[in-house]
Amino acid sequence: MRSDKHDESSLISRIRLGLRARPGRLSSRLRLGIGDDAALWQPRFGRDVILTCDWFLETVHFRRDLHPPDSIGWKCLARGVSDLAAMGGTPRCFLLSLALPHSHTGTWLDGFLSGLRRASQTFGCALAGGDTTRSSAILISVTVIGEVKNRKALLRSGARPGDLICVSGRLGEAQLGLELLLRRKSPAQTSNTALEKHLYPTPRLKLARQLVSRKLATSLMDLSDGLSLDLRRLCDASSVGAVIEEEKLPLPNALGEDASRAKRLQAALHGGDDYELLFTVPKRKLRHLPSALAGVPLTVIGEIRAGSQIVLCTSSDRRIPLKSAGWDPFRPAKGL
Amino acid sequence: MRSDKHDESSLISRIRLGLRARPGRLSSRLRLGIGDDAALWQPRFGRDVILTCDWFLETVHFRRDLHPPDSIGWKCLARGVSDLAAMGGTPRCFLLSLALPHSHTGTWLDGFLSGLRRASQTFGCALAGGDTTRSSAILISVTVIGEVKNRKALLRSGARPGDLICVSGRLGEAQLGLELLLRRKSPAQTSNTALEKHLYPTPRLKLARQLVSRKLATSLMDLSDGLSLDLRRLCDASSVGAVIEEEKLPLPNALGEDASRAKRLQAALHGGDDYELLFTVPKRKLRHLPSALAGVPLTVIGEIRAGSQIVLCTSSDRRIPLKSAGWDPFRPAKGL
Repeated sequence: MRSDKHDESSLISRIRLGLRARPGRLSSRLRLGIGDDAALWQPRFGRDVILTCDWFLETVHFRRDLHPPDSIGWKCLARGVSDLAAMGGTPRCFLLSLALPHSHTGTWLDGFLSGLRRASQTFGCALAGGDTTRSSAILISVTVIGEVKNRKALLRSGARPGDLICVSGRLGEAQLGLELLLRRKSPAQTSNTALEKHLYPTPRLKLARQLVSRKLATSLMDLSDGLSLDLRRLCDASSVGAVIEEEKLPLPNALGEDASRAKRLQAALHGGDDYELLFTVPKRKLRHLPSALAGVPLTVIGEIRAGSQIVLCTSSDRRIPLKSAGWDPFRPAKGL
Repeated sequence: MRSDKHDESSLISRIRLGLRARPGRLSSRLRLGIGDDAALWQPRFGRDVILTCDWFLETVHFRRDLHPPDSIGWKCLARGVSDLAAMGGTPRCFLLSLALPHSHTGTWLDGFLSGLRRASQTFGCALAGGDTTRSSAILISVTVIGEVKNRKALLRSGARPGDLICVSGRLGEAQLGLELLLRRKSPAQTSNTALEKHLYPTPRLKLARQLVSRKLATSLMDLSDGLSLDLRRLCDASSVGAVIEEEKLPLPNALGEDASRAKRLQAALHGGDDYELLFTVPKRKLRHLPSALAGVPLTVIGEIRAGSQIVLCTSSDRRIPLKSAGWDPFRPAKGL
């Protein structure tokens, strides 16, 4: 009986039902969703289309024994939406590639779709289509499609020497949340800020759009793989270097579970999955930079310099090169 | 030494170099490709955007010991481009999600990128971005983005009772090619039409656009999972049934290797991966339907009927229900 329900078309029906948007809720201008050879979507006039895709793979990005299925559903979409936010754009629709073991097409899939639906509604990003197949591991690839006004996207390449380096929120919280989850060795109960951030990150869509509309930033990207690695990418794209002040980093609070300052500092420098924003602001615009925007605290953590070096100015006033030690899937796994 | 070359950024550089288009060759209006948080692409005015994504997974869709890497590169893009063709659209750009074992980031990757580059240039579809990660299996997901004039896409849902059912090319060749490959049990030498079609399928882009511009078809889809399953999908989308004449089916030639008529018939009815077109034409337009279009032979194989049954009229004039036995990843594996 069970196997009858598991052919591809019934799986697609369940996904379609599970992701059905309330009428009028998602103004995505989708002309045609799931069910034909491809989806049709009508972009607005005068917009560039933003395209991004992300893997979300068992053992690489999550563990099926630890991560609640609705967190996996939420996060697989949130990651791509964060990439769109990092261009100053607005998400419109997404494609879901989902490969599952037979054992995960029941309760697990329901939980996954529930988290995905909540993300889809929260971010205003409608399911346009996708592909499903069988697999022994849980494999997810999500493509997110969005829009930004012609030539108004904020890139990584605009940072200039003298610009101030800013971040949103606190850095390293998601890393501490992951470590907490690994220590507990059981499916998570979300009663902790850090764990909540690891499981259900919030892309900074509104904040990014305000940075665009206020013309505050010269460059922008999201922090997905850790400050030390992502700042290297921003500096490389802009052909510049940087100095970061350790004292200024917005470290995670040591909420609930004990975490030394050294550990919180390491998490802030190298921890991934925060999905906060990293951006640069010309010094002359500092007085226009509020301490919080769209409800998210902003912190100046350093300055762009000529050259290519990235230097960390420590609390004992030493200046040391900041090594890129963020998350890289081709290095030996950290954590998972 | 080898491992130094295997971090994510160097892998991305190799992909970017491997897929670099000759300047001016791909008129994709890509404003920003690989290297930022997301890609930017400018659609033409008055166009709907077509979106499709496809899995291409080791052991499900190909075998690393049998399929040449350049065939995998070619085919992973050709499949999505065929979906675009099946809407009457034009491909513009694609996103590549690639997860590889360390062992496959050298020679194998070069071969893969060579096939992918050839497909990209042949179909006029530029690499816009993607995501890479490590994995023990070779995992590929490709999203293809294209365009079609507003409201001019040809859907599966337009078939009406009385319409003639047509297909392009020969059906079942790719299935015979796969079987040949499995018998040989070694990486393929492509000296056989059927094998060539399995390894390097050609999406029917020009043919589909001519069907649109000549207003010949009421419905259109591509044959990726076999006639019996895909015709069921077209009939379901159009709320109709069909009669297929066995005698009229364009069977594969029994080239080179021996294949009985019964076997070739089964391949034509149920074999996947042909990427030919299935479409319906109003009877009154039959005289405008050429025997070949864009260099591809066209064959009328049956007729749309009211109801929902799909009937096969055999060569001995028996009428039997046509069971959907095409490829479904959630059924026990056929072939691979």
